[in-house]
Amino acid sequence: MKLYGNLNSGNCYKVRLLLSYLGVPYEYVDIDAPHGGTQTPEFLALNPAGQIPLLQLGDGRTLAESNAILMFLAEDTPYVPIGAFDRAKTLQWMFWEQYRHEPAIAVARFICCYAPDREGELPTLHEKGKRALSVMEGHLRDTPWFVGSGPSVADISLYAYTHVAADGGFDLSDFPHVQAWSARMAEHPRHVAMTDIPHSP
Amino acid sequence: MKLYGNLNSGNCYKVRLLLSYLGVPYEYVDIDAPHGGTQTPEFLALNPAGQIPLLQLGDGRTLAESNAILMFLAEDTPYVPIGAFDRAKTLQWMFWEQYRHEPAIAVARFICCYAPDREGELPTLHEKGKRALSVMEGHLRDTPWFVGSGPSVADISLYAYTHVAADGGFDLSDFPHVQAWSARMAEHPRHVAMTDIPHSP
Repeated sequence: MKLYGNLNSGNCYKVRLLLSYLGVPYEYVDIDAPHGGTQTPEFLALNPAGQIPLLQLGDGRTLAESNAILMFLAEDTPYVPIGAFDRAKTLQWMFWEQYRHEPAIAVARFICCYAPDREGELPTLHEKGKRALSVMEGHLRDTPWFVGSGPSVADISLYAYTHVAADGGFDLSDFPHVQAWSARMAEHPRHVAMTDIPHSP
Repeated sequence: MKLYGNLNSGNCYKVRLLLSYLGVPYEYVDIDAPHGGTQTPEFLALNPAGQIPLLQLGDGRTLAESNAILMFLAEDTPYVPIGAFDRAKTLQWMFWEQYRHEPAIAVARFICCYAPDREGELPTLHEKGKRALSVMEGHLRDTPWFVGSGPSVADISLYAYTHVAADGGFDLSDFPHVQAWSARMAEHPRHVAMTDIPHSP
C-alpha cells in the first residue's frame, strides 16, 4: 500500500495514525501540497479532485478522502464500533468533522502557518471553530470516547486537527474535556506524532 | 421513525428520496431552518450541533448528518454497493460532496434564495462549484453511476444539490454528462421531487 500525504496535513495524519494502530506497513510519498503538489498533471491523474491523502492499493486502485480511507482500513477491526447504529454514529461524527470542524479549525491553522494575507478571515473562523469545540466538549462531558467503549475512527478523525488547534489560535484550556480526551488519545501504545516521519517498509 | 427536515434543504431531500426508494413510512416534522428553527432550545436538545436533517428512531435515539443517515438506512439494500472497496468509494464521494460540492453549490443557492446581502461571495462560490461539477463531469464521462452498476447513496447525495444548482446561478448545460445523469436519477420509479410534501403515515 502507498500513502500520498503531507506531514503538515491533519487529514493525512489521520491515516498515518490508524495505520500505526493497526501495524500495517506502507510506503509513504510526500506531496508538497502547500506549494501546488496536488495540482500537477501527474497527481491529478491519480486523484482528479486534487487532494491528499490518497491511498493506493497494491493493484493500483486509489481511494481519496481521509475519513473514507479510515473506514476502509478499519473495517473489521476494533476501531469501527460494532452494530448498525454505532457505525452510523461514527459516520455522523466523521461527516460533522469535515463539515463543521475541519473547515474552521484546520483552515485557521493553515492561514496562521502559510497564508498571513488571509488573516482577515480568522475572527469568523475562530467563532465557528469554538462552536465546534463546544459541541465536542458537551459530548465528552458524558463519555470518554465519541462512540462506543474505546477509541474509534471517529476519535482519530477529530483528534487530527483538534490536538494542533493552538497552531490556529485556539485555546484548548477553555475546553477541559476535549483537552483530557486529547491526552487520552496520545496515550495509545501505538501513538505516533503528527511530525514523525513515516518509515517505509 | 421521525424525520426533522425542511423542504428547501437538499441535505434533507437526500433522506426523503432514499426513504421513498425504500418505501419506508415515516413521520415528517418541518423545521424552519432559514429562520432559526434549528437553534431553539427544543431542537438543540435533540441535536446539539443544531442541524437538520435529523432522524429519530422509535426508541428516541437520534442520528444527524445527511450522509450518515443515508448509510444507516441503506445498509443491506441495493443502494449501498457490495464489497469493501466499492463501499469505501461510495463514502469517498459522500465525503467529497460535503467538503467540496455542498459548501459551494448549496451555499450559492442559499445566498440567491435567502441572503442577497451576501452576493459578494458568489464569484468565489461559482468558481469552486464549477470545479466540483467538472470533477463529476469527468467521472460520469466513463460510467453512468458514481459507484457500481446502479444508483447508490453516493448518487442520491450528489443529486440533491446538483439538480437545483441553477437556483444558485450554475448552468448545467456546460456539464452534459452531469445533466444526463441527473435526468437518469429522475427516472427512478419511486422518485419524489424536492418540493413534494411528505405524507406522514
